[in-house]
Formats: sequence, C-alpha cells, structure tokens
Amino acid sequence: MTTEPGPRELPEADSRTLAVIESVAREVAAAVAAGELPEIALPLRGLGNVRYDARKGYFELGDARKTRALTAGTARVFAQTLRLMAVSRRLVADGDFATKREAYYISKNWGDCRFTDQSESDSVMDDIEALASMHGLSREQLRFYPESHGGAVAGPLTVIDRGAAPGETVEIDCTTLGSGAYSIPHSVEHLSFETDAKFILAIETGGMFQRLNNHRFWRAAKCILVEMSGVPTRATRRFIRRLSEARKLPVYCFTDCDPYGFSNIYRTLKVGSGNAAHINQFFCVPQARFLGVTPRDIVDYDLADATHPLTPADVKRARDALANDPFFRRHRAWVTAIEQLIEMGVRAEQQALAKWGLNYVIEEYLPRKLADRRSFLP
Amino acid sequence: MTTEPGPRELPEADSRTLAVIESVAREVAAAVAAGELPEIALPLRGLGNVRYDARKGYFELGDARKTRALTAGTARVFAQTLRLMAVSRRLVADGDFATKREAYYISKNWGDCRFTDQSESDSVMDDIEALASMHGLSREQLRFYPESHGGAVAGPLTVIDRGAAPGETVEIDCTTLGSGAYSIPHSVEHLSFETDAKFILAIETGGMFQRLNNHRFWRAAKCILVEMSGVPTRATRRFIRRLSEARKLPVYCFTDCDPYGFSNIYRTLKVGSGNAAHINQFFCVPQARFLGVTPRDIVDYDLADATHPLTPADVKRARDALANDPFFRRHRAWVTAIEQLIEMGVRAEQQALAKWGLNYVIEEYLPRKLADRRSFLP
Repeated sequence: MTTEPGPRELPEADSRTLAVIESVAREVAAAVAAGELPEIALPLRGLGNVRYDARKGYFELGDARKTRALTAGTARVFAQTLRLMAVSRRLVADGDFATKREAYYISKNWGDCRFTDQSESDSVMDDIEALASMHGLSREQLRFYPESHGGAVAGPLTVIDRGAAPGETVEIDCTTLGSGAYSIPHSVEHLSFETDAKFILAIETGGMFQRLNNHRFWRAAKCILVEMSGVPTRATRRFIRRLSEARKLPVYCFTDCDPYGFSNIYRTLKVGSGNAAHINQFFCVPQARFLGVTPRDIVDYDLADATHPLTPADVKRARDALANDPFFRRHRAWVTAIEQLIEMGVRAEQQALAKWGLNYVIEEYLPRKLADRRSFLP
Repeated sequence: MTTEPGPRELPEADSRTLAVIESVAREVAAAVAAGELPEIALPLRGLGNVRYDARKGYFELGDARKTRALTAGTARVFAQTLRLMAVSRRLVADGDFATKREAYYISKNWGDCRFTDQSESDSVMDDIEALASMHGLSREQLRFYPESHGGAVAGPLTVIDRGAAPGETVEIDCTTLGSGAYSIPHSVEHLSFETDAKFILAIETGGMFQRLNNHRFWRAAKCILVEMSGVPTRATRRFIRRLSEARKLPVYCFTDCDPYGFSNIYRTLKVGSGNAAHINQFFCVPQARFLGVTPRDIVDYDLADATHPLTPADVKRARDALANDPFFRRHRAWVTAIEQLIEMGVRAEQQALAKWGLNYVIEEYLPRKLADRRSFLP
C-alpha cells in the first residue's frame, strides 16, 4: 500500500475524489511545515445540523462544522482519519475497494493507531464520508463499499459495466436472464444504462418480484422490475436513483399496506432519513411515487378478509409518522391515508391480492392502478 | 382455478408430481364411492422419526406414518389438505407457482375451510411436502416456492433456463455480468448447466464474494463463485446441490472461523438439519468440504490480533456441537478444530485476512489452501 498511483487513466469522478483527499492532505502538510498544529474541518453529522429542502425533496446537511485539531488527546483519531483517507486514495488509484469491515481490518497493521473495534473505524469513516459529501462525493466514490449488494433486476434494461480488461465494457441485457435476474453490485457508480422502459417498478417482496418476472410483466407494462426485499440497501437505492435520473424514468413503489411499507420502505427510498442527511443527496429518489397497496385498495379490492390486525408497533409507527415526520405531514394525501389505516385497524400485504387468484395482481390490479397514475400517493 | 389442465406437454418431473397428487385423490374418491370414510397416510415429521444415514451423509425421514382420517373433528384440515393439493395440481398444469404466503391467501376464497392464519397453511403444506418427499418430490416440484431467492453467482458457468415462449430456452453466461452477478431464482428445478469450472466456492459474505468477483478470481482459479450471505437459503442450497451433481463438481465452503460458520452455515449446507429431515434429500450437499477459515489458520496466518473474543453464545454453540451433533462427533478433525477454537477463545472473520492487504486472500490465502485440498475439514 505504499507505491505511488500509477499512470492509469482515471475516470473524472475518481480524479475529483483524489483532488479532495489531496487538498486535505496538502493543508495538513502545510500546517506542519509552518510549525503549526494541523486541523481538519468536518461537517457536524447530528440531527441538529440537518435542514429539509422541500424543493430538492430531502433532508440535507447544514453548514455547521466541527474541527478535528491535532492535540495530545486527538493524536490517535487524527492519525486514523489521515490513514483512512490514504487507504481511500490508494483504492481509487488501484481501481479497488474495501468494505467497511475490511477497512477496519486493514488498520490491524497500523501499530498503535489501529482501530480497536469497528465502531471506531465506522465513526472515522462517517466523518470522511460527510467531508466528501460536501464535495458531492459519496462513500462509494471513496471506494468504501457496503457489505450488502443490491436487489434483483429484470426487464428491458441494458446495464453497461466495466469488463476485466482496461477500457473494455460489458453489456448485460436484463431481458435474457430467464427466471433468474441481475443482482445489483455493491457499488453502481460506474454503471450506465440503456432502456426503452417507461418506468421503474420497485417491489417490496422477493415473492412478488418473482411472480412479475416469471410472467414477464415487464414486457406487457414496458417497465423495469427492481426487488427491494424490505428496506432497500444503499446499492438498491443508488441504482434506482441513478437509473431513473439517467433515463428520466418515473419510479413507482409497490409495498405492503402497512406503516412499515410506508415509513420504512417508501419514505427511505424517496426522501432518505434525517439521521444520515449527508448521504441523502446520493441515495434518495425524490421522483418516487407510491402505487400501492393503499388503505383505499383494501376497500376498493375487497381485501378486508385477507388483512391482519395492526400490531401495537404498527399503530405507534403510524402515529409517529403523523406527529413527527415532516415528509408525511406536508402531504395531505398521506395524512388521510395513514389516518384511514389507523381507523380500519388492519394491514394488507401485497400478496393478499392472491385472494382473487394468483395472477390477479398482473391481470387486474397493476393495469388498473397504472391506468390512473394521478391516484398514486405522493 | 377450476378448468382442467390443458394439453400442454409436461416435463417428466411435472408428470410425476401430478401422478402423486392424482393417486391420493383417487384413493380418497374410491373410499367415498364405497361409502367408507377416506384417509390419507402422511409421514411423521418429528425428530422421533429421523434416521442418520452415514452412507448418504444426511438425516432422513423414517417409516413412521400418521393417518389423517375424515372425522367430524378433522373435516376442516382434511378438506384443506385436499384443496392445497388441488392448488398444487393446478400450478403444475399451468406452469405457475405460489409462495407459501400466497398459498395462504388463496384459501381466503375457500369459505369455511379457509386458513385463519399462515401457521395453519404452513403445517398442512409441510404434511403435503413430507408426503411428496416419499416419492422423491420436493416442495418446489409441487410448485410451492420459498419467499427468498438464492444468492449471487459468478464465474465460468452457463445456466440454461426456460424462455418466455414454450420450448424456448435462455442461456445465461455468468462470466458476462461485470461487477454484477446472476441472482439465483426461487426455484432451480428447471435449470441445467454447462461449465468447465473445476469446483464451486461457496462464500459466506457478500463483501468477500464481491472482492473475488471484481478481481475475477473465478478466472484464475477456474471456479464458480456462489454467495451464501450467511445461512444459505433453500434456493442457494438446491442450486449448489444440483449444479455440483450435474457437473460432478466438488464444493468448497469458505466461511468465518466461528461456531456459526461451522454449525449454522457449513453443516446446514452439507448435511441439512434433523428438524426438517424430509427435505435433506434434496437440499443437502454431502460432497461439500470446509476450506476455511479454520482455527489453525488463525495460527498459520498470524491473525491473532485480528480476532474477536468468542461470545458466551459462541461457546455454547461450540459445546453443543461437540456434545450433541452426530455430524461433528463422527469426524475427529472437526472435534479437534472445535476444541482448538474453544481453547483459543477467539473467532476470526474471513475479512480478517485483510490485515495482510486487501487482496492477500486472492494472492496468497486461497491459492495456498487450494494447493492442499486434503487439509480441508470434512
């Protein structure tokens, strides 16, 4: 890990990552050369430094900063911050990556400034990520990848990826994977897309994804199917965001009708979270709309006898959304829907439509919903 | 769901499934026609009816049976059993499938014999699955699919799947998916395979899979990479089993060095579990061997300072394996390894090798291990 980056031609985004890291390093070196104690300005990551930008549609980090200065008490974490940035620089130069877990283990060779536990390295990495985010760079661009890859994808989409040899590209046609699917990699920054699909359908459960894929629903509806498997991972969210932006595609979200589907899945996909405001600019999908299942669908599709009672945790989550969540609170249609759900006292899964036959969802429900997109919740 | 199966040409396995269902139905109908109370003989699924076949290498169901007779008290469950078998027959005839969850919802249209809760439908489905298993048929062949699909796959493998049109096939070349991968579908019964790989490497974590895939380790080592993401799903296990059997490939398992990696991941992959003995014949991979990480590797690769202390739950799991698990107990090498782990008091993750550099695992560890396959644990 000590040789200089070679003459490899770097993509523009990689050059920007290196520039950010090197500018911090130069400031530290200049302070040291001038006989001063170096310091690094890092964004404050707490909820107190978050603002909601209604125009952009997500929470973003405010301007507050903390300064990590080199003192006797901070020498170790100061060194760790610089070393982890050096790891990032090396990864970018080598075209490699490290998971958060691997980054922690790399430090085991750092002598006295090794991390004793992953919470330490995660915290330093979050600081570096927040710093990079001020320059429009994500953690993935620093080449620190999440442990989890993204969900499955099927439909009229060609993903253009790098091949094994430099400059080589690979094209993956997501209509040609049979009953299988394309598994989204851990980082999607380097992918580009070709498609004639009209929209992206983001689906909560693996079972529903498999049904729509096996019946080639994507062909009939001219759409790209993305399986979220519950709350979408970073990779899934970033994939949907990049694909929808690159090809100007609407995103429709299809989850269970319950507070978890609304708050934890849809809201995370659409507006991100206040706790991790520094990543929302990359991961949230403000253009997403909620197709269903809605509380009104329980009535319209006569699903009452295929519902389950809301649990106390469901009711608490729903009331929290109404009382505290700026996203739901500013959309009258969501407030009405959540109040209706609490009033009905039941939840309905997307599979509940199987009451009317396994492929009712394909033959009736989705075509009817898609014919009236104005009825989607915001 | 009431029309007769059409004249579609059925694969041989599907014809066997229909034959089993129809033979049960005929016996019931004959009893009714003769004025007798019908009954169905179902295998007992409890641990008391399990035997360990050392030659086959897995637990299997014994010969004990329970009889589900039609009485006033059993009328509902008797009807449910027949209706669920009728659903299976329809799914086979239509080339469709249902998840366990969907099968539960289908019953919402059955009037008085609807299931009130999924535990009821799961239990009836387990009975039918056990019955079918006596005829060498899995639940997937009954067309009841699990909710979860399988892990990701990369390497020199062509998966041959059905296309959208009848008789059409699709070939998926798993070397052409870039940094992405092939996502194993929920059921793999209909897949066939072409490969010139020498073995299958089954990997515990997504992070390690991504590393080996991004660096095209599969090319250097001539192997197929399969990501398990912890304990492998039914689809992942069945995929590895079918692929290794069809192409006579050894299976090497690469997990963390901890009791969870040994007992929950490797042992489940290799010999299945006593609690679900009726499925082991389809899902276990008796030919699997344990490549690492082993307790000895912690010493040989000087990983001591990249370990973590065993938790009390780890120690309990390890002691349980030594005291009660017939698989570990009959392999001296495993007993020694587990005793060594307890003695050392620490666990090591597969990412711990990153201590020696991120790609040490590719350049040193795996080549050295693969050069001495006799050292693999059984």
